[in-house]
Amino acid sequence: MRDFSNDHRWLSLNTATVRKQGDLAQIVDACAKHGIRAIDPWRDQVATIGLDRAAKVIKDAGIELTGYCRGGMFTADESHRNEARDDNRRCVDEAKALGAPCIVLVVGGLPQYSRPGSAPSKNIVNARAQVDDAIAEMMEYAKQANMPLAIEPLHPAYAADRACVNTTEQALDICDRLDPNRLGMLGVALDVYHIWWDPELLPQIARAGKDRLMAFHVCDWLVPTKDILNDRGMMGDGVIDIKSVRSAVEAQGFAGYSEIEIFSQNWWDRPMDEVLQVCIERHKTVV
Amino acid sequence: MRDFSNDHRWLSLNTATVRKQGDLAQIVDACAKHGIRAIDPWRDQVATIGLDRAAKVIKDAGIELTGYCRGGMFTADESHRNEARDDNRRCVDEAKALGAPCIVLVVGGLPQYSRPGSAPSKNIVNARAQVDDAIAEMMEYAKQANMPLAIEPLHPAYAADRACVNTTEQALDICDRLDPNRLGMLGVALDVYHIWWDPELLPQIARAGKDRLMAFHVCDWLVPTKDILNDRGMMGDGVIDIKSVRSAVEAQGFAGYSEIEIFSQNWWDRPMDEVLQVCIERHKTVV
Repeated sequence: MRDFSNDHRWLSLNTATVRKQGDLAQIVDACAKHGIRAIDPWRDQVATIGLDRAAKVIKDAGIELTGYCRGGMFTADESHRNEARDDNRRCVDEAKALGAPCIVLVVGGLPQYSRPGSAPSKNIVNARAQVDDAIAEMMEYAKQANMPLAIEPLHPAYAADRACVNTTEQALDICDRLDPNRLGMLGVALDVYHIWWDPELLPQIARAGKDRLMAFHVCDWLVPTKDILNDRGMMGDGVIDIKSVRSAVEAQGFAGYSEIEIFSQNWWDRPMDEVLQVCIERHKTVV
Repeated sequence: MRDFSNDHRWLSLNTATVRKQGDLAQIVDACAKHGIRAIDPWRDQVATIGLDRAAKVIKDAGIELTGYCRGGMFTADESHRNEARDDNRRCVDEAKALGAPCIVLVVGGLPQYSRPGSAPSKNIVNARAQVDDAIAEMMEYAKQANMPLAIEPLHPAYAADRACVNTTEQALDICDRLDPNRLGMLGVALDVYHIWWDPELLPQIARAGKDRLMAFHVCDWLVPTKDILNDRGMMGDGVIDIKSVRSAVEAQGFAGYSEIEIFSQNWWDRPMDEVLQVCIERHKTVV
């Protein structure tokens, strides 16, 4: 496993971590100032300052991307499927313009939450079948742009409203079905928050292998977790043995960034500089 | 699948559902009044009115038990292991005195939460190994009392603080390791709240078979879930397709009660009679 204790060259910042403190241009500036070499921006943050300007500020700062958040939300009723498809095609175009190495896919839960206005359903089995079909369709478009897709399994607490892909095994099953020859265009984005509890985690990371491991995200699971969406922890403040997961991922040959993604009202309430300083310190000590 | 629409003879009430509205004697009275034939009481509720009196009021009311909540919290540091073992032995004695058909096991998460005072740990793999050892030990004692143990897999959101057994597959793996000959003393208690999201749910219910299916609990998953512990939903108010899970369980030959267990500040704030009336109505329509 790589030694992170001396510098933070393998720290990437998911820009949602400081989304309340500034716009994307300000976040890029702050990252450059703190020697953070990579980010993973969100679509709404890019849209706020405009795609062209986003591409320019990122390029001018010499900052690399570790992904683009996010594609997906595939589950929809019949009348919302085209909307979902077109939205994901635009996402591919944006990712390409920004020079992202992959798109992170949050696949959607039940249709009424994934694409509001869709007819309510309790059929998660059906939602999962839709996800397979829609990823297959998106892959066709993404391949032309040479843009890999990284399925992010989300914690089962989000199964209803955000993603019906809830384990690494399930995400890899989709990869194997849609990309049996491992052509490099489909893989997984693993976030310790979503997967740390999984008894099958280590064998599934081994199953993924280097070519399917497209992104590695870190934060922490707090006890108690007061808000299931916006009370994620700074690395070291919770119960996840982050180093053991990174060790397993690197044992497969993953040599990319550890991307910090923290949705937290607590951290959104602090100055951007303070958050980035703590991220850098914890990256050296507990990641 | 049995037709529940005409009566509520297969409704059991987990007494935590109305724990704030009255003591166990009052709950038993209310159940008798509403024609509820079975309950699953909690140890602290029994302790409050005393074991002898609890046994007497249950017997006098002609009410059956569907389980006894709860044994477990096995994970502990060295200095708290005897405490955990002795506590679970007392649980067996109480269950026997009350005539319970099984003890529901919530196995514990990390030791510092399971047995407060234990040294903090982030090693969930180690916690799981401890659970295996401790269930094996408890089984020796339970066998002498002819008291079956039902492992309840809890939702992964509870992995840190309540149970490191988080899927039906994982619970059944423990059953197979500790009771390979299926002697009837070890099985699972399945609660739709904890398992509805699991992509492996249906094959694992089939794997369990009738003899391992010792209890079936119902409530619902609300969107949004405002509190991960105490915002469970009344059946029908959330996103779980409860009938599809009951159908799968009954296809294996399960013919017992559907036990309603709702931890909810919302429902604790309402009069006991109202809660029981709604439970009965929803049992007929959505369970």
